[in-house]
Amino acid sequence: MHKVVDLELGVDILAANKRIAEENAKLLKKNKIKSFDFVGSIGSGKTLIIETIIDELKKRPDCGPKVGCIAGDVAGDDDYRRFKKHNVMAQNLNTKKECHLDAHLVAHALDHMELGKIDVLFIENVGNLVCPTDFPLGAQKRVLVISVTEGDDMVRKHPLIFRLSDIIVINKVDLAKIMEVDPEGLVKDAKKVRPDAKIFLTDARHGTGIKELMKAMGL
Amino acid sequence: MHKVVDLELGVDILAANKRIAEENAKLLKKNKIKSFDFVGSIGSGKTLIIETIIDELKKRPDCGPKVGCIAGDVAGDDDYRRFKKHNVMAQNLNTKKECHLDAHLVAHALDHMELGKIDVLFIENVGNLVCPTDFPLGAQKRVLVISVTEGDDMVRKHPLIFRLSDIIVINKVDLAKIMEVDPEGLVKDAKKVRPDAKIFLTDARHGTGIKELMKAMGL
Repeated sequence: MHKVVDLELGVDILAANKRIAEENAKLLKKNKIKSFDFVGSIGSGKTLIIETIIDELKKRPDCGPKVGCIAGDVAGDDDYRRFKKHNVMAQNLNTKKECHLDAHLVAHALDHMELGKIDVLFIENVGNLVCPTDFPLGAQKRVLVISVTEGDDMVRKHPLIFRLSDIIVINKVDLAKIMEVDPEGLVKDAKKVRPDAKIFLTDARHGTGIKELMKAMGL
Repeated sequence: MHKVVDLELGVDILAANKRIAEENAKLLKKNKIKSFDFVGSIGSGKTLIIETIIDELKKRPDCGPKVGCIAGDVAGDDDYRRFKKHNVMAQNLNTKKECHLDAHLVAHALDHMELGKIDVLFIENVGNLVCPTDFPLGAQKRVLVISVTEGDDMVRKHPLIFRLSDIIVINKVDLAKIMEVDPEGLVKDAKKVRPDAKIFLTDARHGTGIKELMKAMGL
């Protein structure tokens, strides 16, 4: 069935997203907030890495910079509740049937946050390696988290999101041997598609590699 | 920018997919092919489970039923090449920027397969827990594969795909302890959203649980 309808074309949805992302970026800059969009598959360790960074920051004098988190998920509030346990400002964003956050959703979340009281913002995207790719949110840097448990063919299957990420984290390296996955092979593949990316091997559960990652994030 | 364009509405895309899925189903039925749509996140173990089933089938007299595979991925042919190593008929489907297979893509792949020579068809969807949900492909049963490495909140984050899957496989249970994830908690959550699903705990790398799964698949 065909209908004549008045709507924005797909390409304009991306353009509209870009425009709103730029507005988000301006708002965050105005409030002097360092901001990061975390992407990666479900279970790659995005939430735990953010939690570990929060804990590290809190060890600093005067509890370090003030943190805000936006937890993006299709459904539920598991990650939101994890962030709240660290006593940071947090917003939960359920996308319902959408497979990624977009700049407009993030703009709404920012509306509900006291930005003057935040120094560092972590936006955790929906666990998905395809859909978030084309939707910048306005964060300064995109951090891609993959895990060795996801196999040695990750980069070849999803080159685009690697190309469009500033920092690449290969997590759960403590399981590399048992998974029979060589993290260095992933590093090599990642460098092919994004030669200038900063790449880190981490084991967030035991804190390995987190300080080096934080340094690259300017934290 | 708004334009007046002639196109199918989103809801009709789903209706069109459903119609083509029904045609695929008819074609598969006509050829007496048992067919399965494997969904699950990247690295959950879909490919290895299919490979293990293929190996089990080949142990039977006369090499068992003839297998065909369709490997769906955004990019690359890693899974396709894995299937080909087992000397089964296989087709590679790259979705490019799409985050899921659809019935139309599968129809094209079926066009290129000698269906009269296939008894069992495995269609492996793109690694993604959101987007494949609404796109039936025409397979008789949908098999959802998750892994304990993806965390204990999987079902709460993605209830819909659990609800729409006939068989649920919780894989990599050998890593449950080291991941500090209780598979029984996942089973409990899954039963809440899909009380009649057949749920299996597997460790595909060591073959655990595969025969029970095959029985439920009628293989």
